[in-house]
Amino acid sequence: MKVGIVGYGNLGRAAALAVTQSQNGELVGIFTRRDPQKVVPGVPAPVLPVARIGEYRARVDVLLLCGGSATDLPEWTPRLAEDFHVVDSFDTHGRMAEHFRAVDAAARRSGHVALLAVGWDPGLFSLMRLLSEAVLPDGRSYTFWGPGVSQGHSDAVRRIPGVRDAREYTLPVPESVNAVRAGEDPELTPAQKHTRLCFVVAEEGADRVRISREICQMPYYFADYRTEVRFVTEEELARDHAALPHGGCVLRTGHTGARRQMQHTAEFSLRLDDNPGFTAGVLAAYAGAAVRLARRGESGARSILEIAPADLFPDTVEELRGRYL
Amino acid sequence: MKVGIVGYGNLGRAAALAVTQSQNGELVGIFTRRDPQKVVPGVPAPVLPVARIGEYRARVDVLLLCGGSATDLPEWTPRLAEDFHVVDSFDTHGRMAEHFRAVDAAARRSGHVALLAVGWDPGLFSLMRLLSEAVLPDGRSYTFWGPGVSQGHSDAVRRIPGVRDAREYTLPVPESVNAVRAGEDPELTPAQKHTRLCFVVAEEGADRVRISREICQMPYYFADYRTEVRFVTEEELARDHAALPHGGCVLRTGHTGARRQMQHTAEFSLRLDDNPGFTAGVLAAYAGAAVRLARRGESGARSILEIAPADLFPDTVEELRGRYL
Repeated sequence: MKVGIVGYGNLGRAAALAVTQSQNGELVGIFTRRDPQKVVPGVPAPVLPVARIGEYRARVDVLLLCGGSATDLPEWTPRLAEDFHVVDSFDTHGRMAEHFRAVDAAARRSGHVALLAVGWDPGLFSLMRLLSEAVLPDGRSYTFWGPGVSQGHSDAVRRIPGVRDAREYTLPVPESVNAVRAGEDPELTPAQKHTRLCFVVAEEGADRVRISREICQMPYYFADYRTEVRFVTEEELARDHAALPHGGCVLRTGHTGARRQMQHTAEFSLRLDDNPGFTAGVLAAYAGAAVRLARRGESGARSILEIAPADLFPDTVEELRGRYL
Repeated sequence: MKVGIVGYGNLGRAAALAVTQSQNGELVGIFTRRDPQKVVPGVPAPVLPVARIGEYRARVDVLLLCGGSATDLPEWTPRLAEDFHVVDSFDTHGRMAEHFRAVDAAARRSGHVALLAVGWDPGLFSLMRLLSEAVLPDGRSYTFWGPGVSQGHSDAVRRIPGVRDAREYTLPVPESVNAVRAGEDPELTPAQKHTRLCFVVAEEGADRVRISREICQMPYYFADYRTEVRFVTEEELARDHAALPHGGCVLRTGHTGARRQMQHTAEFSLRLDDNPGFTAGVLAAYAGAAVRLARRGESGARSILEIAPADLFPDTVEELRGRYL
């Protein structure tokens, strides 16, 4: 499978490694908007200007689009789906339907497969929510995120005047997770599910009280949560908070029996040292599925929910049944 | 969706309840080999002799086959797949390929869909093993079962002369589960993964020392495990061990990063008060998928690995994306 990567930030770097380390992937090129001369790739692959990507149509089986959901992917994915099979990790819930429509139109017109919103949430967690609800229809679902670094929340803190750098950790509230696991079916507010912990490097002379207040009062991001702000030096941030761990769990508790007396709990959890590293593995796995769908003549936009797990491997169904059933 | 159930033991009873309680299922009939007059159904549905099942071809969308894997399903599933779309929970690993071949031939010939080996293991656990291996290719997978009642092991104990009744619990070894969760990638023997605990009602005057020895030395079932045997009265067995709890977990630990320095853990776990109750929910969910595949013109034998999760619901993909992504 010949793979191209578009975008070379944290996710793009991790994806390049994932493809290079995989059994049946070959990294054809890394396509960047920056000056390729100034990009030092972490793997032995050519770095090329994204403007030249059209020349690679015949040489690439699938593109992994490693851009941001805010501005990159809404533009990149529909455009590149005209010429390539693509996989992206679009994650803006409110614009999901619109993104699928735009990409689906482009992909169908040109006969390409586009697998969208691939990662762990949206992605594997979406799949687990659907699956556990299907098999336990009389029940309740919960998703907890963290402990881990939320890049969106970290960025939001960085935009506050007087903040030089910041790192936000989302933490699940242990008592709430335990109550769910114990089958108590609690009704939980956002504040009861998660707390937020910010490490902030302030500019010299900046008003820390104001910065703290602006963080804690920021609507949607922090206002609904118990938020703690700790000021640290630039050195401390670099030393203690350089990693991008994340994780979380999808829990479903449900009932069966004539009097609903039997209780069941299904839980899927992830503990990740490196969010981009794991997400890249999900993208690389589903890139294989996109290529297999395309070879069967399918086209259009798909989500992870619509992919049969067997399509994640090149093996025959007989081999997979023997190995996994 | 009009559903018929074949076989009315623990699983059949649970399946009848699951269909009756579901939003879009209608239980057309329970088909039994016993005298229907002597079967008291737990739900308001006709109990019919299995010999008359042919008359229901036009009235049933899908059959849930709730028989045993040893002798029932190898005979039932290929035969009934000639006339119906079917779902079974065949779980004999060593005869899996053979079962798929026999059913696939019958189902293709007659244009039916047969979804086989549906449940939680094989079933959801199979799916999780495949999925977690696909996204974390550089890693290691573990499956732990229990704490829970193994019906196969309980039956094996019951076949020993002098045993009136028995119940076997399979218990995961907590230290081993914790070592896997901690990312230690241990190499584990069967004895290091599980222990076995048997509650046995002996016949009056039976030699308990011999019974204990025969259990502990039984090849494959007990000989490779630390096994404890406790003798109890018939009343104690009925009072304390009537339930059929089970569960377990599929764990995968994997590495990413240029030097494999990043570690990730994916875990799927089930805690079930009632094994047949939960398994029935899985069968009912996948029965819907079988019907949807059939409506698209597909035929033949399928495993859970080959079913796109979105096929578990009647909703459009747009609705499912909105709800779960």
